[in-house]
Amino acid sequence: MTTATASRFEELLSTRATIARPRPLQAAGTATYEFGGGLPDPASFPYAGILEATARMLEAEGAEAMTYGDPQGYRGLRELVCDKYERYEGLQITPDSLVVANGSGHALSLAFSALLDVGDPMICEAPTFHGTLFTIRRHGPEILDVPVDAEGIVTDAVRVRLETLRRQGRRCKLIYTIDNFQNPAGPTMSRRRREALIALAQEFGTLILEDDAYGELRFEGEPIPSLYALDDSGCVIRAGTLSKTLGAGVRLGWLCASKEMLPYLQGFNFGGGVSPFMSRVATYYMREHMVEHIALLVDVYREKRDQMLRGLWEPLEGTDAEISHPEGGFFLWLKLPTGADPARLAELADEAGVRYVAGPTFFPNGGGERNVRLAYSYESPEKCYQGGKLFAECIRKATA
Amino acid sequence: MTTATASRFEELLSTRATIARPRPLQAAGTATYEFGGGLPDPASFPYAGILEATARMLEAEGAEAMTYGDPQGYRGLRELVCDKYERYEGLQITPDSLVVANGSGHALSLAFSALLDVGDPMICEAPTFHGTLFTIRRHGPEILDVPVDAEGIVTDAVRVRLETLRRQGRRCKLIYTIDNFQNPAGPTMSRRRREALIALAQEFGTLILEDDAYGELRFEGEPIPSLYALDDSGCVIRAGTLSKTLGAGVRLGWLCASKEMLPYLQGFNFGGGVSPFMSRVATYYMREHMVEHIALLVDVYREKRDQMLRGLWEPLEGTDAEISHPEGGFFLWLKLPTGADPARLAELADEAGVRYVAGPTFFPNGGGERNVRLAYSYESPEKCYQGGKLFAECIRKATA
Repeated sequence: MTTATASRFEELLSTRATIARPRPLQAAGTATYEFGGGLPDPASFPYAGILEATARMLEAEGAEAMTYGDPQGYRGLRELVCDKYERYEGLQITPDSLVVANGSGHALSLAFSALLDVGDPMICEAPTFHGTLFTIRRHGPEILDVPVDAEGIVTDAVRVRLETLRRQGRRCKLIYTIDNFQNPAGPTMSRRRREALIALAQEFGTLILEDDAYGELRFEGEPIPSLYALDDSGCVIRAGTLSKTLGAGVRLGWLCASKEMLPYLQGFNFGGGVSPFMSRVATYYMREHMVEHIALLVDVYREKRDQMLRGLWEPLEGTDAEISHPEGGFFLWLKLPTGADPARLAELADEAGVRYVAGPTFFPNGGGERNVRLAYSYESPEKCYQGGKLFAECIRKATA
Repeated sequence: MTTATASRFEELLSTRATIARPRPLQAAGTATYEFGGGLPDPASFPYAGILEATARMLEAEGAEAMTYGDPQGYRGLRELVCDKYERYEGLQITPDSLVVANGSGHALSLAFSALLDVGDPMICEAPTFHGTLFTIRRHGPEILDVPVDAEGIVTDAVRVRLETLRRQGRRCKLIYTIDNFQNPAGPTMSRRRREALIALAQEFGTLILEDDAYGELRFEGEPIPSLYALDDSGCVIRAGTLSKTLGAGVRLGWLCASKEMLPYLQGFNFGGGVSPFMSRVATYYMREHMVEHIALLVDVYREKRDQMLRGLWEPLEGTDAEISHPEGGFFLWLKLPTGADPARLAELADEAGVRYVAGPTFFPNGGGERNVRLAYSYESPEKCYQGGKLFAECIRKATA
């Protein structure tokens, strides 16, 4: 490309294209201890079961799998999601309340596209999942952050944000929240906070986007009804995914929303239907094996969480470090002890072959310098223990 | 949902959400003669080969298939696309010039997102593929149409559009064109038009988005080098797909672009990588069977085209009807004889069980009342002949 053309092309970019640059991706599994991304446990993938499901599916509906599909997504998968919600939460919905997408990241982006213009205000937890933060930034809104505590999103802080906007004559487009085993901080939003958040959305005329990727992977404690289930006004859009219960490589997620809103969300799906082949393979497998497979995963990830916590606390005992103890999900969230140097920790962890994600990554508008996130999902329980201990030793060394 | 909340939610929609409503989809295969959508031939799907490829793939790289993937798309698939371009066109590119997407509709949308703000001017053929037209409208540009003749897009009309914009102090963001077996009109853009179009893009500092979904499905005649191959300035973005050569249900397509531009396009892919599982299944199959499978499809679709043309011309001989004779692809484009009543034709075809797409669907800004598109891709050669004849009889009956 000549310089003249290159400069011309940059002048042609859309506003959104110039706001956020593509994020770099570190290849997974190249560290000795891969505690970075939320990668599912490879040893639990049901390879034989998936192949068998593919054979059954091709026999039964191969022609439909190989051609264009329903723009709302394969009905069999939507029925499976309904069955899952009823079985795990007692929540009754119909397939008409769902639209399938290529993973929950894509599902969330349907909602952002349908609601956000560049410059629109929205509310987001700080910290929050950095993958979604990237998708949000691609839409160019003004991100107003609110803190998270042991009960989840701090609804008093949400109220302050909403009141400020109202005084400015502006309207919050949506509130994005991760309510179960919040990524990265770990808390599950309490019932009273859920009720307060819904009341706020209703009072101020805004929407809630509830991101629940890990809900079934609960190791202990009682599940709390979803925001979607607690609301009766249609102000909640809920996102889900098969990435954590079957495999992220299938790229299948969905949104639940009111029937009035669903066409607007679905409208941002490109044509052709979402993965007619893959959604059938996943459905045929999960229809037969969902309950046993999820039960297996709960045991697998609980053990990994416990081993990593054990490894971390051995060197950190007696310090003022804080470590989350999530009731499910993939992640631990650490507050480094007083005096720890994050830059020195990064060097030491790199030398030790431990990959993690630094806290500031999860904050929309700064903060988190003393935090780090560790994923226990990918490595074996043994490596979670060893790598956790090694990382905690790095923390000690990085602490003056 | 209460009325109050419903009305509140509509106030919260983004500009783009309010521009284009979701398009309704007719279920395929419910007509006796399904000549509506560009559906691949179900009898040619390689069911056994796909299952065998799934088994080989899971054995070789199952863990990678089941987890998050490369944001640029599975490298093996990008290598396959390079191999395909070299084999069929002598075009040499590297995997670094490609980004994978969920079908070419999604691939095209990456370019629209990276380039178009609401209200921006762009140029588009009239007629053009209505699926893309929907995706374009979702981005809210001002669509300036230019006609298509036997040599493809009329470049003199493109020049007039570009000069008018220049006088207005505006800049065309991109020119969207389908250059091989244009959908729906059928012509393949001549080499001199391709060179003229590139020269115009360079002169006026705009980009060309070349959509080539059917290039390998050439029944006769010599292929013409792509716009992407003829350009040396980086002003062409090219889209491709496996939908027509393997199966639309795999939802795999791609963009080729300059290395400078690619990150901006890829940036609108949501995270997690595009279909790590499905892209490996497709790659493992096509690596072994691409050439023989495409050769089979060329014979299948040529026979269907010929049978439909034979069926159509029997009743229409001697009228002033015009029917395209495309050198490849899935579609015929008809100009109804003088005096034919399109509304009456719609009724008669519906009674006869023949599904087609009415001409105005393909025009961005009106026109095409005397045109219809027929897809010969889905039905058997026998039904293409019978249904073509039946449809032509409907045309005769609808003609005063």
